[in-house]
Amino acid sequence: MDYIPEPIEKLARELNKLPGMGIKTATRLAFHIVDMNSDGVNDLSSCILDAKKDIRICPLCHGYSVNTGECGICSDYSRDTKSLCVVQRPQDVFVLERSGFRGIYHVLHGVISPLDGIGPDDIKIPELIKKVKDLNVEEIIVALNPSVEGDATTLFIAKSVHDIKVRISRLARGVPAGASIDYVDDVTLSRALEERQEVSC
Amino acid sequence: MDYIPEPIEKLARELNKLPGMGIKTATRLAFHIVDMNSDGVNDLSSCILDAKKDIRICPLCHGYSVNTGECGICSDYSRDTKSLCVVQRPQDVFVLERSGFRGIYHVLHGVISPLDGIGPDDIKIPELIKKVKDLNVEEIIVALNPSVEGDATTLFIAKSVHDIKVRISRLARGVPAGASIDYVDDVTLSRALEERQEVSC
Repeated sequence: MDYIPEPIEKLARELNKLPGMGIKTATRLAFHIVDMNSDGVNDLSSCILDAKKDIRICPLCHGYSVNTGECGICSDYSRDTKSLCVVQRPQDVFVLERSGFRGIYHVLHGVISPLDGIGPDDIKIPELIKKVKDLNVEEIIVALNPSVEGDATTLFIAKSVHDIKVRISRLARGVPAGASIDYVDDVTLSRALEERQEVSC
Repeated sequence: MDYIPEPIEKLARELNKLPGMGIKTATRLAFHIVDMNSDGVNDLSSCILDAKKDIRICPLCHGYSVNTGECGICSDYSRDTKSLCVVQRPQDVFVLERSGFRGIYHVLHGVISPLDGIGPDDIKIPELIKKVKDLNVEEIIVALNPSVEGDATTLFIAKSVHDIKVRISRLARGVPAGASIDYVDDVTLSRALEERQEVSC
């Protein structure tokens, strides 16, 4: 990148650190930002700082909250506190919200991963067990990514709440809606076969 | 996007204004930025402001420059000032640089587009004519995008310098290197046929 002015190159390198952003896209965006009017650039820059500054962790679900208090979901008393959905990251809450789930959440902030030195106490599992007992939760729905670490964490949670009277389930695995069978990978297909559902009529 | 905290939603909307950035990618990036450490967020935000603040327009080629003076290319006296490459946008200079061109540049900051009310005097064409005369340029290479407006602008430049002793050329059009003939569109293919090159051996 000879002769690219240093401030643009530096901005491109910063943008390049964002996920899914290659150096070509990052450079294109950097040029676009320089080309924007000053108000637009100031808005973008201050939105970045504000988002980092104003977002807090909700003390109840450990998801994102705007105030120092509880988040919008935890402070919504119409929600079913007997149904608790466990997710890995704060943003997963908003993905689940789109599905119409009306229970409450618990964000683990990670999954158990011995290779990375992450044990059950390094993520919010002790807080989960306490919450399940305190709120008399009736069902825990574990919605972690279907990976080795995700599955191990799901099993660990199931074992940890074994003595408590609570149902535990995980998201179904199978063919995604709208997918074509011949584009589905082998692991997904074999799981969809294993977990096949009886058709009643 | 119910329940997504407002600062994250606002940042996502700002990112969504960038080219090629859909609302889903923008939201994913907004969550990622909130998840970054404070130093990273501050660096990103200040790089955006700095790039806008520190970039100036070079008074000679009208491309980007870091100082208030000439850009790195115009102040490089080893370059061939007899060969002048005309481009549409400042960022096009750096694309051409990668091809190994060692002449100088002139950035038009647009193309002639009567439908948008952009005439020859609204872009840097008068400055181009003056520069060609002042520097005794021997060849003008017009490197505009191959569009109706780009072609019209190229023709206008050719007519404007008709009285001056200067060669004028434009980029060759044809099959891109590495492309497979059956994936090339019809317009490109017919142009590649028109501008076919004799093979000498």
